[in-house]
Amino acid sequence: MSQSLESRLETLERRLLELEDRAAIMQLIASYGPAADTCSQGVIAGLWTDNGIYSVVGTATYEGKAAVGALVENATHQDYVRRGCSHVMAMPHIVIDGDRAVATGYSQVFARDGDYWRVDRASANRWELVRTPDGWRVAARYNHLMDGSESSRGLLRQVVAPA
Amino acid sequence: MSQSLESRLETLERRLLELEDRAAIMQLIASYGPAADTCSQGVIAGLWTDNGIYSVVGTATYEGKAAVGALVENATHQDYVRRGCSHVMAMPHIVIDGDRAVATGYSQVFARDGDYWRVDRASANRWELVRTPDGWRVAARYNHLMDGSESSRGLLRQVVAPA
Amino acid sequence: MSQSLESRLETLERRLLELEDRAAIMQLIASYGPAADTCSQGVIAGLWTDNGIYSVVGTATYEGKAAVGALVENATHQDYVRRGCSHVMAMPHIVIDGDRAVATGYSQVFARDGDYWRVDRASANRWELVRTPDGWRVAARYNHLMDGSESSRGLLRQVVAPA
Repeated sequence: MSQSLESRLETLERRLLELEDRAAIMQLIASYGPAADTCSQGVIAGLWTDNGIYSVVGTATYEGKAAVGALVENATHQDYVRRGCSHVMAMPHIVIDGDRAVATGYSQVFARDGDYWRVDRASANRWELVRTPDGWRVAARYNHLMDGSESSRGLLRQVVAPA
Repeated sequence: MSQSLESRLETLERRLLELEDRAAIMQLIASYGPAADTCSQGVIAGLWTDNGIYSVVGTATYEGKAAVGALVENATHQDYVRRGCSHVMAMPHIVIDGDRAVATGYSQVFARDGDYWRVDRASANRWELVRTPDGWRVAARYNHLMDGSESSRGLLRQVVAPA
Repeated sequence: MSQSLESRLETLERRLLELEDRAAIMQLIASYGPAADTCSQGVIAGLWTDNGIYSVVGTATYEGKAAVGALVENATHQDYVRRGCSHVMAMPHIVIDGDRAVATGYSQVFARDGDYWRVDRASANRWELVRTPDGWRVAARYNHLMDGSESSRGLLRQVVAPA
């Protein structure tokens, strides 16, 4: 194979992989809501690495995939699901660096309130992801309510001005 | 052409097609809201196959693309549009299997209510899609309000634990 | 290199570029919210071309990237940020034509109101983008509240029935 042909193929393969990574990360994030709203504990756990964490800033930090999956047993979560709710993840901003990636995006919890739905949570999320032999997994997720605090903006600021 | 070169090209072409399929399905879903909010009957009909259906679970099932398009004539829909509304489709989870695909995602209808907008509908959607000579089309869409019912969760559960 | 090989490589490269363009445009749009919610004036300015405009239809038009960035100094915006808010951009519909592109999609501003968030703005957005040596930039963004007006629907109608 000629040098230039080899080089064109390698470039195509590298560029394609980056797009596949982006698609896989979007797919992972898009599967969180359906898993949460069906209390699919094992599915949620399976999105995280073994030692992965989920920090709901100011409320609790779940450490390890089993603990993250078990969050669906929370009384608050159970109440949401019984009333009717949607955990919606918006299209994220994604930065991939080899086998690590950071996705940042908003989420809302729409919870039924009579004939309508109320926005019970409006948050920013930072997803720290790692590539594993089984695909991308969450090493850490930080969820922060957009409550006007400096720390909520700090989470988002890392997107627009990485350290 | 050498065997290995042919094989690398075919792999690239196959992987690229999968990403193009994902992009086309996202584009189709992203065009539903603008079509609904402008009462573009023909455009909505054109997203479905000839015999495609749209089931608004618990309310009505529209059978055939013409019937699906005609839903914009509903009094409820017309009222939404006159008041001001956004039919917003969230980033979906997508599984492609050859010439068939399933996209699952949330949608909200934000309807104007004085100076603000109210979440009039918060739903889960299952889009069953088929590849046609003219591109991806909707064979069936199921829209279920997240109303706390077991059936609303059933629709989402198919994402996280396919039958 | 044989004719057919050259042609297959060129086709792959062209198709890949289109997907990369779509990803880059989604990334640009996904970075607007975090920039707005952190009052990152320079970051917002950097998304626009030097002479780019941002028209908040019926309210104001900001001309030139510096003026667009400075919108975060508005009293209304500052109040949103202090109270806690999310500027959320939904997955857009994207049409690319060489070095120009149009992305159309919904946005919401969720603003904190006591224990919940209120939908203070539900808008349609038309992003007119150009490819520059530094990547895609916004030449013009039109944001129109979905207020029931014909002009709000006009903005969306361009998606479903381009002129």
